[in-house]
Amino acid sequence: MEQEIINNIKALGIDMINEAKSGHPGIVLGAAPIIYTVFAKHLNMNLNDLTWFNRDRFVMSAGHGSALLYATLYMAGYPLTIDDLKNFRKLGSKTPGHPEYGVTPGVDASTGPLGQGLAMAVGMALGDKIIESKYFLNRKGTFGHAVKEKIFDHNIYCLCGDGDLMEGVASEAASLAGTYKLNNLIVLYDSNKISLDGSTNYAFNENVLDRFKAYGWHTDLVSNGNDIKEIDKAIAKAKEENKPSIIEIRTTIGDGSLLAGTNEVHGKPLTPEDILQLKQKLGWSTKPFIVSERAVNNFRTEIQSHSKAKYDEWAKEYREFVNNVLGGNSSELNYIFKRNSFLVDVCKFPSKLSKDDKEEMRVTNQKIMDEIALHLPNFIGGSADLRSSTKVYLSNKEDVTRDSYNGSNIWYGVREHAMGAISNGLALTNFRPFNSTFLVFSDYLKPAIRMSALMHLPVTYIFTHDSISIGSDGPTHQPIEQLAMLRSTPNLNVYRPCDENELLGAWNDILSINDKPSALIVSKDAVPVLPTSKRNEVSLGAYIIHKECEQLHGVLIATGTEVHKACLIAEQLYQSHKLDLRVVSMPCMERFLEQSNEYQKEILPEGVRTIVIEAGSSFGWHRFVYNDKYLITVDNFGASGTKDEVLKNCNFDYESIKSRILNILN
Amino acid sequence: MEQEIINNIKALGIDMINEAKSGHPGIVLGAAPIIYTVFAKHLNMNLNDLTWFNRDRFVMSAGHGSALLYATLYMAGYPLTIDDLKNFRKLGSKTPGHPEYGVTPGVDASTGPLGQGLAMAVGMALGDKIIESKYFLNRKGTFGHAVKEKIFDHNIYCLCGDGDLMEGVASEAASLAGTYKLNNLIVLYDSNKISLDGSTNYAFNENVLDRFKAYGWHTDLVSNGNDIKEIDKAIAKAKEENKPSIIEIRTTIGDGSLLAGTNEVHGKPLTPEDILQLKQKLGWSTKPFIVSERAVNNFRTEIQSHSKAKYDEWAKEYREFVNNVLGGNSSELNYIFKRNSFLVDVCKFPSKLSKDDKEEMRVTNQKIMDEIALHLPNFIGGSADLRSSTKVYLSNKEDVTRDSYNGSNIWYGVREHAMGAISNGLALTNFRPFNSTFLVFSDYLKPAIRMSALMHLPVTYIFTHDSISIGSDGPTHQPIEQLAMLRSTPNLNVYRPCDENELLGAWNDILSINDKPSALIVSKDAVPVLPTSKRNEVSLGAYIIHKECEQLHGVLIATGTEVHKACLIAEQLYQSHKLDLRVVSMPCMERFLEQSNEYQKEILPEGVRTIVIEAGSSFGWHRFVYNDKYLITVDNFGASGTKDEVLKNCNFDYESIKSRILNILN
Repeated sequence: MEQEIINNIKALGIDMINEAKSGHPGIVLGAAPIIYTVFAKHLNMNLNDLTWFNRDRFVMSAGHGSALLYATLYMAGYPLTIDDLKNFRKLGSKTPGHPEYGVTPGVDASTGPLGQGLAMAVGMALGDKIIESKYFLNRKGTFGHAVKEKIFDHNIYCLCGDGDLMEGVASEAASLAGTYKLNNLIVLYDSNKISLDGSTNYAFNENVLDRFKAYGWHTDLVSNGNDIKEIDKAIAKAKEENKPSIIEIRTTIGDGSLLAGTNEVHGKPLTPEDILQLKQKLGWSTKPFIVSERAVNNFRTEIQSHSKAKYDEWAKEYREFVNNVLGGNSSELNYIFKRNSFLVDVCKFPSKLSKDDKEEMRVTNQKIMDEIALHLPNFIGGSADLRSSTKVYLSNKEDVTRDSYNGSNIWYGVREHAMGAISNGLALTNFRPFNSTFLVFSDYLKPAIRMSALMHLPVTYIFTHDSISIGSDGPTHQPIEQLAMLRSTPNLNVYRPCDENELLGAWNDILSINDKPSALIVSKDAVPVLPTSKRNEVSLGAYIIHKECEQLHGVLIATGTEVHKACLIAEQLYQSHKLDLRVVSMPCMERFLEQSNEYQKEILPEGVRTIVIEAGSSFGWHRFVYNDKYLITVDNFGASGTKDEVLKNCNFDYESIKSRILNILN
Repeated sequence: MEQEIINNIKALGIDMINEAKSGHPGIVLGAAPIIYTVFAKHLNMNLNDLTWFNRDRFVMSAGHGSALLYATLYMAGYPLTIDDLKNFRKLGSKTPGHPEYGVTPGVDASTGPLGQGLAMAVGMALGDKIIESKYFLNRKGTFGHAVKEKIFDHNIYCLCGDGDLMEGVASEAASLAGTYKLNNLIVLYDSNKISLDGSTNYAFNENVLDRFKAYGWHTDLVSNGNDIKEIDKAIAKAKEENKPSIIEIRTTIGDGSLLAGTNEVHGKPLTPEDILQLKQKLGWSTKPFIVSERAVNNFRTEIQSHSKAKYDEWAKEYREFVNNVLGGNSSELNYIFKRNSFLVDVCKFPSKLSKDDKEEMRVTNQKIMDEIALHLPNFIGGSADLRSSTKVYLSNKEDVTRDSYNGSNIWYGVREHAMGAISNGLALTNFRPFNSTFLVFSDYLKPAIRMSALMHLPVTYIFTHDSISIGSDGPTHQPIEQLAMLRSTPNLNVYRPCDENELLGAWNDILSINDKPSALIVSKDAVPVLPTSKRNEVSLGAYIIHKECEQLHGVLIATGTEVHKACLIAEQLYQSHKLDLRVVSMPCMERFLEQSNEYQKEILPEGVRTIVIEAGSSFGWHRFVYNDKYLITVDNFGASGTKDEVLKNCNFDYESIKSRILNILN
């Protein structure tokens, strides 16, 4: 019967690819026994409660194995129909070319860009550990030692291939998973020694299991990928380990195809002849989309046989916990079931800065985040080994360490890309994660930012050291084009506040938006609170921070700490030249562009000469100005020098900006 | 005496940081004995021939150790003065905050963004191996077996810290170095168990040496980082190995400082008291910038004692080789000494496509690259396991494998970021490297592209699958914002040619520019050669590809395969609506913006309604149009579906574009 289920999965997957005329048959035929074993014997789920928080997660890191996943989900009883399978890779279907979170029931993460699936699985595993550590049947919160009656505990299964394991992001995440001893993570490594271009012998000759052992993982090898018993045994053993597990399962890519064992079978449909002989080999009808009712029933029964008990036990314990420990009121657990269910009115936070005080914005940001953390239990995050510089650290919360997960500060190490992908995994576990590094290193985690945006996950990326003004570290550390990179990314809001008020407003806006990630750009320059800056206007994207006195001669758009310069220059030029300028602070270009035409024109009247001042690339700013001449920006790499030297060198010191404005407008 | 030299290096480094009021004393004090040992006992160089091609290379991957490097270079006799050291981190100095290639003699690569230094060192090692394998004293070229008398052979030394080894790009590169058995690479791992935020215990608990063993490296441990003899012995042993080597050297960060062994000493100057007690401990004058003449002389003599013999022997062998093997004419080796010294007139290549033929542009590109390879011996590269899809592969050249380096096709595996960084290493070894992946995955290697641009290295990044038109793979594989990301990067040319002619023109331009990288965006759509497309105009960035008939009603700017649509639409709208449109093909925005105002206005006359058509983000295009309305672009994520479905869904199919143009202009 096992074989019949597996053959059915294989046949459906091959039919889907054939129908779509595109897809990846290699992994369908090679890894079907693996996914079958995970679902049939281990993965706990509930078809009547698909988003059950304590369900086990399954991440298809080898996202090109989507047909395999969908066929399995269909067989397992997830709400997918044969028509859904027939619409594989068609527009608007539940079965897109690569798994997409939110589109297909049973898909726990969008995957496809290799390596990130495994890293997200690490994030999910870490997220589960953190929640596990907070709630116990017999006591609640605080540090728990070896308490058995956890309310939440589930496993993360991740299927990955050679390609995933070559990617740096997977290495970064695996090293961190070992450090954090995430024993709820079980990676199934579909080891077929073939990648898209050919044998892994050419480019991937390492000993993967030894590498993971060095990371602190439990490793195991199943030498015959068709041996269900061995796969099952290895998974059962992995579940008992006190560290993350990777099970290398030797498979044959495209097993049963005429092209089996070659890269030719990786990424394009089988020929009709090949399908014919394959189905004969499988003892399967040659008609497409044949489903064996017996196989389906058996598969579902198998899944239920372990899932149901687990669910019922959990439901009972959860009720007991709510009744006995929480006194019947489960509201403090809301965040576990729904991201961001606690509203925080950040705009109402009292100012930490008295008038005339100056403070580095990264320090102000730290204080604001501390206060947010008091209200938002799922507000967690960390830094890629730069918290001493970014100041992103919740000083009133504990660290998350391998000895105690009950904390909010995660140590990511110098692993920007994994930090981003793990943040996505945490968001998929309903956290409200933040992370931080220097703005210039946003380059390192761009791929993860894109996945946040694609999955509509509210991850907050905090980037400090936001311009050439950092000075002596030089051009490798001075961002130029990064703001443009971030602003051009769809479904991402980029905030660059100018002072404490705008920082509060930015956080307020960030926390009120649940369906997209944000980048929060924070200067390390010390600035006062501007008397005219506004908190509530940040959500409008831009507003008048310095109004013209009588007759509008021109508008200066500025962001971040450049707003201070712009306001001062406007005042001075009015005094000295009777030049009557308006200053528009634009903490979030995306939000401004969402506003009505009327509002946009009210802020930036048509026909008025407008100048943009930003210590970054002009790319993307032309929409607000007549031409290049009106852009006071930094379009070349910076240089190493003192802050003043570098600003002057880039023609971006106060006096240079002032005289450039005069030149433009006079 | 050894200690005196080391102490002098330490004292100078600390003085530099103190004078600059910024820098990283921790590594200066911790790793001085390592760098001393490498230079004094192993690194072959020639002060009279600083760019000697066969010199050993030294890459300070822990780029924040710049003060340590500069102090050592000064002591070793490189053309740096005490004033240069005093100007550490000052504008225009030879001693910037992080090592910059081209600024400081003896700096073989710009470093600072962690992990990439090690990956560039892998590229240099691979480059050396390839050149080694081509030239022998007793025979020339072709496959050589165990021939001892190589003309070129040098070692790459790379000093890295914990931070480097946490980065994914370093993992990717290390795995590839193991696969390629690069035994000319010796990594010195300054292992001090401290990173910027604190103990590595929090976030980096793996066994690094075991990990590298799994990659196929030789590993060694020196448990006392002050034991010169042990370091020396370990390096000597590593040089004899047939694989890459990593030597973990246990050091104390900030050794001798009051803050020794803590993260406090990592990244800010020591206090005056600390400097005082440190110098007393070292037995050094408390006056700043004291140099012991004896130490300098001894250090230089030591370096000479091994370097001179090596250089003299090489010079002799090289002369013999040129005389005996090359018949006195060394011109075929030019590329080894100077990048791109062979000019290739790609514009003169015969067309491979006959009239009315259609061909996928990636296939056309493959043929052009084959032909370039016939002319350019240093034209090498590969793909991140996507050559079957990108078609970037020199079919007339051999593969580079661990059994034979004498080839031009490198197998990078699924390691985009390392591919970029290794390409930089190859370019630093005077190759003309190219690499390739899908455009959407340019995200993965953006950090390396930035380093190419910063170092002025002519690396060619080839990105195929360049828009939503790839269809069914879905949004994870469909680029949207990537063109904006690339175009906003300083010192990078981005080419998106529309057909074979423009592809030839793009390659011609790319190969004629030696001081910047390029991104070449190649569609997989099949297109004919347009009768009006031009090769030589590509270097102008944009040109009129379809002229208005009588009276100019509007301009369509298009790039890539959208140009075909634009031309057809212009023809049709003239027929159907007497709308007289000009089409401007803009294969390279950067090149166009470099042209004179006159040329720009000739192509895009002022006051004429201009529309941009590009299957990517509108971000950055506003400079050419009145407002948003004139941008026919794709600003949201795509979707999985057939090509036609997806284009239609994005309002970007032929008919939609045509009617959008009509709406705009009517």
